Amino acid sequence: MTMSKICQKYEKAGQLLGKRWVPMIIYELLQGPKRFHDLEVKLNISAKVLSERLKYLETEQITKRNVYPETPIRIEYELTEKGMALKSIIDSLAVWSQDWF
Amino acid sequence: MTMSKICQKYEKAGQLLGKRWVPMIIYELLQGPKRFHDLEVKLNISAKVLSERLKYLETEQITKRNVYPETPIRIEYELTEKGMALKSIIDSLAVWSQDWF
Repeated sequence: MTMSKICQKYEKAGQLLGKRWVPMIIYELLQGPKRFHDLEVKLNISAKVLSERLKYLETEQITKRNVYPETPIRIEYELTEKGMALKSIIDSLAVWSQDWF
Repeated sequence: MTMSKICQKYEKAGQLLGKRWVPMIIYELLQGPKRFHDLEVKLNISAKVLSERLKYLETEQITKRNVYPETPIRIEYELTEKGMALKSIIDSLAVWSQDWF
């Protein structure tokens, strides 16, 4: 792989974590699957922005959306394996930001 | 500290690493102090953008600029202690991006 190809992937990962709310959503989902409303309340985020971020994370295959055909229907968001693999980065970033800002 | 204060710091750290070229510059400086021209060539980045990023990193106290009063004058950029502390995050992010993108 060329250096420029490596850099591209690297920057993509950096941009993902640099997007507002994204690290917070991943952090919440690292504790386990959550419903839309749980995330909305926990993060104190608008439904519009949360919905947009969850779609973005699904496109990037970081989260997936599980639909349970109950009455009323239950929808949960959870991390994929790719999303779970972000755990150590999210943790180190949390420690660094508390130590240095 | 409140959750919202923690999130603010966290997001600031995320935004820093999400800024184009920033992880690359830090990665290069983790190998040791470098001159402006070395970074410019190594990263294949325009002088204008590199200069802007280095100023940003200096403001955030991630890098510092050392001026050596030689003839011709020598200027080197190096990581501060805060910048050095990013090493494990940068490394994990590199591994994750190669594995998953």
